[in-house]
Amino acid sequence: MQSVLKRAIFNSTVMDHSELFENIVRKRSFLCVGLDSEIDKIPSFLLKEKDPVFEFNRMIVDATHHYCVAYKPNIAFYECYGAAGWSSLEATVKYIRENYPGIFLIADAKRGDIGNTSKMYAKAFLENMPFDAVTVAPYMGEDSVTPFLSYHDKWVVLLALTSNKGADDFQYHSDDGIRLFERVLNVSQRWGSVDNMMYVVGATRASMLKDIRKLVPDHFLLVPGVGAQGGSLEEVAKYGLTSKCGLLVNSSRGIIFADSTGNFDKVAGEKARETQLEMAKHLADRKLI
Amino acid sequence: MQSVLKRAIFNSTVMDHSELFENIVRKRSFLCVGLDSEIDKIPSFLLKEKDPVFEFNRMIVDATHHYCVAYKPNIAFYECYGAAGWSSLEATVKYIRENYPGIFLIADAKRGDIGNTSKMYAKAFLENMPFDAVTVAPYMGEDSVTPFLSYHDKWVVLLALTSNKGADDFQYHSDDGIRLFERVLNVSQRWGSVDNMMYVVGATRASMLKDIRKLVPDHFLLVPGVGAQGGSLEEVAKYGLTSKCGLLVNSSRGIIFADSTGNFDKVAGEKARETQLEMAKHLADRKLI
Repeated sequence: MQSVLKRAIFNSTVMDHSELFENIVRKRSFLCVGLDSEIDKIPSFLLKEKDPVFEFNRMIVDATHHYCVAYKPNIAFYECYGAAGWSSLEATVKYIRENYPGIFLIADAKRGDIGNTSKMYAKAFLENMPFDAVTVAPYMGEDSVTPFLSYHDKWVVLLALTSNKGADDFQYHSDDGIRLFERVLNVSQRWGSVDNMMYVVGATRASMLKDIRKLVPDHFLLVPGVGAQGGSLEEVAKYGLTSKCGLLVNSSRGIIFADSTGNFDKVAGEKARETQLEMAKHLADRKLI
Repeated sequence: MQSVLKRAIFNSTVMDHSELFENIVRKRSFLCVGLDSEIDKIPSFLLKEKDPVFEFNRMIVDATHHYCVAYKPNIAFYECYGAAGWSSLEATVKYIRENYPGIFLIADAKRGDIGNTSKMYAKAFLENMPFDAVTVAPYMGEDSVTPFLSYHDKWVVLLALTSNKGADDFQYHSDDGIRLFERVLNVSQRWGSVDNMMYVVGATRASMLKDIRKLVPDHFLLVPGVGAQGGSLEEVAKYGLTSKCGLLVNSSRGIIFADSTGNFDKVAGEKARETQLEMAKHLADRKLI
């Protein structure tokens, strides 16, 4: 009976724009916790565990799940340990799905290839693992993105304006006054809807959110770069919030590596709670809760 | 003694622009065989093997290595089987490195993320696995690419103009007459040299090679799309060859899936040889061999 129940929960990954907003209201939070769980940075006492990265993730998730609506493992931090890293990732995703079924799960993979190849990446993250969403790089265009959208109720999180310095190299390349990231926002709206497409917009570019909201007034934006990378939550909320929130703000290092002692999970929970409380204030100010 | 020798061979992955050209001259070939080894397409009698994908790759490599200078596993076709897929990939790369040390090994991964994350991807492919090169997507700019270049004698293969239909969506976005793929070619030359940077230019855009050679007269170009995707080797050679060849032309499905019987490896070898002979003709026409 328990295994039947677990399978049912495991498969309950359907979440559209409205349901994501309902979760945000219920938790008074639009926090996404980034599970960039680099083995060199996790508390050393965990290294004696059979799968230290999974054990770290499990404890972080147990301590923070009340305060966030999404988790986002960055795949690089698993892939760099080869087959063993993939096992840690698979165990983490399974654990979250089985124990916290309402959570939105994003594979931060930044993949993108020709159609028949993107299909294989989509299979990896949306079929073989029960992620709700995958981050995708737009450089190769429509047929590199749409295979991810062929899964019912799964999402693409497309890179638009990223938080790093290198964003300046190509993302502002301007054709007739339309910058590349704006063209990505315009063109890609033909491929998906507000129910299966969101965009990465870095918090270090928060002032740009005003212009970006003119192009994508309703889409969810996934906003990295708050905290360690220097972005301001207040600015992001000011320019980015919509009538259905429309924001998932990611924090990784500022939460998961806030402490490296035996209390690391408790401290991570406190940091997540601090962020959640600030988010609740912004949601209340806009009368969304 | 044998294991010492094997370790020495395993580590002998140093290959610059001149050495790559020397291998091309020696083999009279600039063929790269794409190991897009989808389990649904490999001969069914291999499915009884413990690791069918590795067994398929091993037999393909044994049959084709005389006729090519490089192998390029597309990572999507391994990643879609999770930890097991990564084991097949690791075993394949180890097998090629140990048995055919002069071969250039490209991880077709199309990765790219903020600096500290790209560093992890670089570790995955250039340190934990002995690839010589990784394909990288340029959207996130300099700090997403340079971590791959911090490895001595390893290469970045940067996406410039890809072979798929979606290339039209963003790669021709034009700022003051300079198209995005041209800007990628211009700007990225500051990050690396002809000894550690090459570019993806799809064979389906062969006529564009004339213009591209004005921007990157000496860099190696990795050219996918010959064969199954419809590109012409003759056109690619006509517009792309340099005084040191400057081309790696990839063929995947046309070689590895040419036959699905017990003779599949022999037929793959014949297909690779046909391509090699055509390449030798082009090299001879240009007096490079």
